[in-house]
Amino acid sequence: MNYKETIKNITGADKGAMESAREYCDSLIKPPGSLGGLEEIAVRIAGITGSVKNKLDKKTIIVMAADNGVYEEGVAAAPQAFSMLQAVNMTRGICGVSVLSRAAGAGIIVVDTGLKTAAAGSAVIDKNIRRGTANMSKGPAMTRDEAEKAIDAGFDIASAAFADGTDILGTGEMGIGNTTSTSACAIALLGVTPESVVGRGAGLGDDALANKIQVVKKSLEVNDPDRDDPIDVLSKVGGLDIAGLAGCFLAAAYHRKPVLIDGAISAVSALIAARICPPAKDFMIATHRSVEPSYGAAISELGLHPFLELGMRLGEGTGCALAFPIVTAACAMMNEMGTFADIEFDDSVLVDIRETGEE
Amino acid sequence: MNYKETIKNITGADKGAMESAREYCDSLIKPPGSLGGLEEIAVRIAGITGSVKNKLDKKTIIVMAADNGVYEEGVAAAPQAFSMLQAVNMTRGICGVSVLSRAAGAGIIVVDTGLKTAAAGSAVIDKNIRRGTANMSKGPAMTRDEAEKAIDAGFDIASAAFADGTDILGTGEMGIGNTTSTSACAIALLGVTPESVVGRGAGLGDDALANKIQVVKKSLEVNDPDRDDPIDVLSKVGGLDIAGLAGCFLAAAYHRKPVLIDGAISAVSALIAARICPPAKDFMIATHRSVEPSYGAAISELGLHPFLELGMRLGEGTGCALAFPIVTAACAMMNEMGTFADIEFDDSVLVDIRETGEE
Repeated sequence: MNYKETIKNITGADKGAMESAREYCDSLIKPPGSLGGLEEIAVRIAGITGSVKNKLDKKTIIVMAADNGVYEEGVAAAPQAFSMLQAVNMTRGICGVSVLSRAAGAGIIVVDTGLKTAAAGSAVIDKNIRRGTANMSKGPAMTRDEAEKAIDAGFDIASAAFADGTDILGTGEMGIGNTTSTSACAIALLGVTPESVVGRGAGLGDDALANKIQVVKKSLEVNDPDRDDPIDVLSKVGGLDIAGLAGCFLAAAYHRKPVLIDGAISAVSALIAARICPPAKDFMIATHRSVEPSYGAAISELGLHPFLELGMRLGEGTGCALAFPIVTAACAMMNEMGTFADIEFDDSVLVDIRETGEE
Repeated sequence: MNYKETIKNITGADKGAMESAREYCDSLIKPPGSLGGLEEIAVRIAGITGSVKNKLDKKTIIVMAADNGVYEEGVAAAPQAFSMLQAVNMTRGICGVSVLSRAAGAGIIVVDTGLKTAAAGSAVIDKNIRRGTANMSKGPAMTRDEAEKAIDAGFDIASAAFADGTDILGTGEMGIGNTTSTSACAIALLGVTPESVVGRGAGLGDDALANKIQVVKKSLEVNDPDRDDPIDVLSKVGGLDIAGLAGCFLAAAYHRKPVLIDGAISAVSALIAARICPPAKDFMIATHRSVEPSYGAAISELGLHPFLELGMRLGEGTGCALAFPIVTAACAMMNEMGTFADIEFDDSVLVDIRETGEE
């Protein structure tokens, strides 16, 4: 499917449903607002689906796997082969995202949009656009056409998941070197400094971090991406995992389903989707606060607030997996809690109750 | 059971099991430390149970319900009858904690340790010590003997839950006016100012807040609790819900089971348990950051770090219900993730992988 035509039909959140949800939430037997962010999630989901009450039974995480040509500049310490190996391990159920999504009752779909080596004979879905990006410090990571094809691939995979009954989508990625491309995109899109968004990952030392910053700066100089053209940024200094995820975010908006943001790569992909189609932002829900610094820059720009503070930085979609039970609990609150009318409290008393705090 | 004799046998966390858990965690196929707080939870649970791998199948929340004589000073806007009514509603499955615990697959036990009106004919368990505390702004809330009996009641109820197979305990409360007693205990135990820990709840206006602060100050002046004697503090300016919860925290430590802290009342109850028996602290896990200000003071003193930032202030045990899936996910990580040895990565590569970040 060509996403460019399709997304013209996307409109933002249903404000009326959100207002109804907020009112209904205040009728539940608790001081108004006392469930805080859980209430905000419930209201947001109402805006997404158009219904005050929702059930998000089928949960799916889509993981986009791709390699980055900039790897050869020494920006990541892990071997590049690890991208493909871990993509396969995800489908074998032994990676972080596999275990945590299983614990949450969620399915997982791993997609190759740009792995350097094919994950032959595995359950990884082959949507490969090219065998890894080019080295962005020497020229564009990919062509504009390749970036758009990867967005289409993500859009199609997510659309198929929704057609298969998925009620809520999580997003994840695997690609050695992808915090480098992610940081470059964040700088290009937000105008922030390299020093503020290029991170150490788990263990880059001072020298390796300084090199990573230089590589990102050089990539931006060589390519000079157009800040106002997200596809230009994506194709020049992005990655095929980022592009695929951007397609997932657009598809969620098109199908009016909630989609969870994971860590830094996912957040920057969400930002690109929002730049391509601003109403798509209304369908995104932040989950955990990644310690990878480009995360914070992207999530602030999106105006979203993560609720899990676990200091995580694994990526893969692990934050989405952990967040599913919280999001579904917000729906349970709306579906199952009693109202003041149910317990036949008269109005005057109800006003009093609404003024009290933690009980 | 007399808790005072029993708790003499309590020892702290198993440091050897924690060290083994940390080592095992670093052998899992992810950059070491990249699952952040989830890893810390797994290590903490290992210290509690003495085993690196744990299954926390049976989850139970104990809710202590009690009334506060200080209510007559106008410190809470909700009608006092609401304590009993909501305790019953909890057992009927329609309150916040009922819905959220059901969503998490957790059971709930509601206990009357000090309700003013008996919850006759309901599923609320009757362990009533007295029909509400006395007005602490005029004298002690209860006698020392009553406080200790309420601790015993909590200890017994929690011990019965563990005997019935509970693997992990959550804590909650219901009692109109209990942020007032909680703030008073926090001030007495921590030496903080009333202004820093007495909160507005959901909607106290400026005048009502000023009155609440004065009532707390007067209660502390009238009773002059001994900071170094937690039972003195508890009996003079505490409550029967707080005392019952303190007993639950002590029982969890005695039975070497993890116990979750909910909001402000739960956190101050945990602090009292830790003052009575310092090693009990090792068995506690913080969940959500309540916006009720005495929460922060208590949780800092306990050296614990909540991971859910939802701006909640309902109490009831709702934060514990939301946290159960995160804590069990930490166990799943240990039980189900593959190790570097499993995927037959050689040592030299493994060192490289450990230096990378979000992938």
